[in-house]
Amino acid sequence: MKIKYTLEKEEKNTKARLGKIETNYGTYDTPMFMPVGTRATVKGLTPEQVKDCNAGIILSNTYHLWLRPGEDVVNHAGGLHKFMNWNGPILTDSGGFQVFSLAKNKKKDITEEGVHFKSHIDGSKLFLTPEKSIEIQNKLDSDIAMSFDECPPASADHEYLKNSLERTLRWAARGKKVHSNPNQALFGIVQGGPYEDLRKLSAIETVKLDFDGYSIGGVANDGESKEDMYKAIDYSIPYLPKDKVRYLMGVGEPVDIIEGVERGIDIFDCVLPTRIARHGQAFTRNGKINLNNAKFIEDFTPIEDTCDCYTCKNYTRGYIRHLMATDEMLGKSLLSIHNIRFLIRLTEDLREAIKNDNFLEYKKYFLEKYEQNKKH
Amino acid sequence: MKIKYTLEKEEKNTKARLGKIETNYGTYDTPMFMPVGTRATVKGLTPEQVKDCNAGIILSNTYHLWLRPGEDVVNHAGGLHKFMNWNGPILTDSGGFQVFSLAKNKKKDITEEGVHFKSHIDGSKLFLTPEKSIEIQNKLDSDIAMSFDECPPASADHEYLKNSLERTLRWAARGKKVHSNPNQALFGIVQGGPYEDLRKLSAIETVKLDFDGYSIGGVANDGESKEDMYKAIDYSIPYLPKDKVRYLMGVGEPVDIIEGVERGIDIFDCVLPTRIARHGQAFTRNGKINLNNAKFIEDFTPIEDTCDCYTCKNYTRGYIRHLMATDEMLGKSLLSIHNIRFLIRLTEDLREAIKNDNFLEYKKYFLEKYEQNKKH
Repeated sequence: MKIKYTLEKEEKNTKARLGKIETNYGTYDTPMFMPVGTRATVKGLTPEQVKDCNAGIILSNTYHLWLRPGEDVVNHAGGLHKFMNWNGPILTDSGGFQVFSLAKNKKKDITEEGVHFKSHIDGSKLFLTPEKSIEIQNKLDSDIAMSFDECPPASADHEYLKNSLERTLRWAARGKKVHSNPNQALFGIVQGGPYEDLRKLSAIETVKLDFDGYSIGGVANDGESKEDMYKAIDYSIPYLPKDKVRYLMGVGEPVDIIEGVERGIDIFDCVLPTRIARHGQAFTRNGKINLNNAKFIEDFTPIEDTCDCYTCKNYTRGYIRHLMATDEMLGKSLLSIHNIRFLIRLTEDLREAIKNDNFLEYKKYFLEKYEQNKKH
Repeated sequence: MKIKYTLEKEEKNTKARLGKIETNYGTYDTPMFMPVGTRATVKGLTPEQVKDCNAGIILSNTYHLWLRPGEDVVNHAGGLHKFMNWNGPILTDSGGFQVFSLAKNKKKDITEEGVHFKSHIDGSKLFLTPEKSIEIQNKLDSDIAMSFDECPPASADHEYLKNSLERTLRWAARGKKVHSNPNQALFGIVQGGPYEDLRKLSAIETVKLDFDGYSIGGVANDGESKEDMYKAIDYSIPYLPKDKVRYLMGVGEPVDIIEGVERGIDIFDCVLPTRIARHGQAFTRNGKINLNNAKFIEDFTPIEDTCDCYTCKNYTRGYIRHLMATDEMLGKSLLSIHNIRFLIRLTEDLREAIKNDNFLEYKKYFLEKYEQNKKH
């Protein structure tokens, strides 16, 4: 079966909503944060460690798996779940974002047919079309596939964005036409930058194509302001059906997750928790801390006293600081576990706040603590 | 309490022996392979993953921990077990081997008092003495401390080796004198290169000092031949008491573990399983294989069908090959788990062979399979 979203409750004072997603690999509550396993592995963690963070769906990248090891290899292995030993649901992106952000020298040629660009690995010439993206995702056998879209740069003007979103709509229709995996949902993506008319147009036309869920794209580009991100959500949400899941792509800063949930978003993904972990940073309820810092050398307390993650239950800041100082892999893994759990725990708290109709109070409480260090 | 070794059985046709070591962290069977956690972490693995390989004692390095984070930091954390979250026994080496192999530019000045050398990290001047080595190990609070010894190069001649081992004996006596941790055993180290008279002299005089266990050192140097290693064991073993544990330092090739056990060795350590893992190599009963090799891209079988490790139960060669090709940390961790389990499983098989008095048959069976690829 395909995934099924059920709206369970709307919060009294905001657009925040509680829901659940039924999948072939269990049922999960929303709002939800999805850890990212770009190349069929959440960097540095075993699937058991990811599960132990109470993760539901994870995300994997079509572009990266297309290049290495190739979708046919994954397919011959029995699909992505079996290949990577993950018995939970998986969402694959379309490759669009990577084509526009990673492609070698940023040189790409966008045609109606698809995008010509160069591999970020070896510079070889590649051509990705909406049909190809869906075909790859069909073969990967993820639970949720994304439509192939253009991710315009933050600097794009109204005219560019209008042409782009119209092409993205035509691409979405082409992708839907060839989508054939009966166990895989297909999501449409709303584009249109920070413009109300464009987001409205994109949302209405995308919904007309009737997808299994809807994503708000083009909000995690370099140079995109937070204000524009919130506008993009506000301008898109009113035109999305209530009975379908809503996914804000590439967003993982705590404040943005809260702002997204407040506006009616159900799922989020981001490489942030694992990426900052590899650089020694940990989320805490009092803001980020950098475990490379020598001040932690004799700090034998956990990253967070109140955190229930494997790392906080078993290791100290001083030990993690030692692992980072000596470039030991375990340090990156322990911080990744904590940071993923931190964001998942945040979504658990947000769900509780929605249940209790005190979302805004929780938001105020969380952000005051989280941002207190910035004010000093 | 200090560790206690009990000899349980000697094999009928060889000097191989079965025993057990009681520690403050449980009782473990010998012969045993000890995984190495150089800097208070077995590279890339959580303690649970190490335990899951059925590991008993692990080894950690005095030299590395002295430099980073410093023995006082570890001591203030509550000792090495607590610092690294390892609730099993730990053996610390003396730092001697690292001083002689790692010290910057190999420049060192050996005096009767100790060794002047430069840090391999920043070239700063350091001075390590027998007393200092024991003091550091006391503070680390490992279960087994090693005496500070000189590890002469494989090229050293008889005269050099004689002077060196006599100084090592004086160092051993000095170290024993200052050793004061009531929960920590202290081992002596037999030196003497490949010479029968020197090994005999070193063994007899070291045993006179009455240590809790004995190690055979100077066998894992660059340029040391396997023949010289086996000689060193053969010439030392007859002079070591049967009721004390015997440790062959830095040895982890399967063939060498087998040859060592046959000659009466009880415990081994080596970085080999984790080091070759990080380069994509896996031990198998049919010899080593290199998972970087493209021929494994669509090989969806485990590293070894017959292996009971976490990696072999859950992952394929093709997936691990993908992780290595994309430089994903998980690949190194999965291979490390397999390789550590491989050596531990070998010692389990050797123990079974000793029980059954068929050590030589097992040796023949194992080595014929293990070395078959070399013959092709």
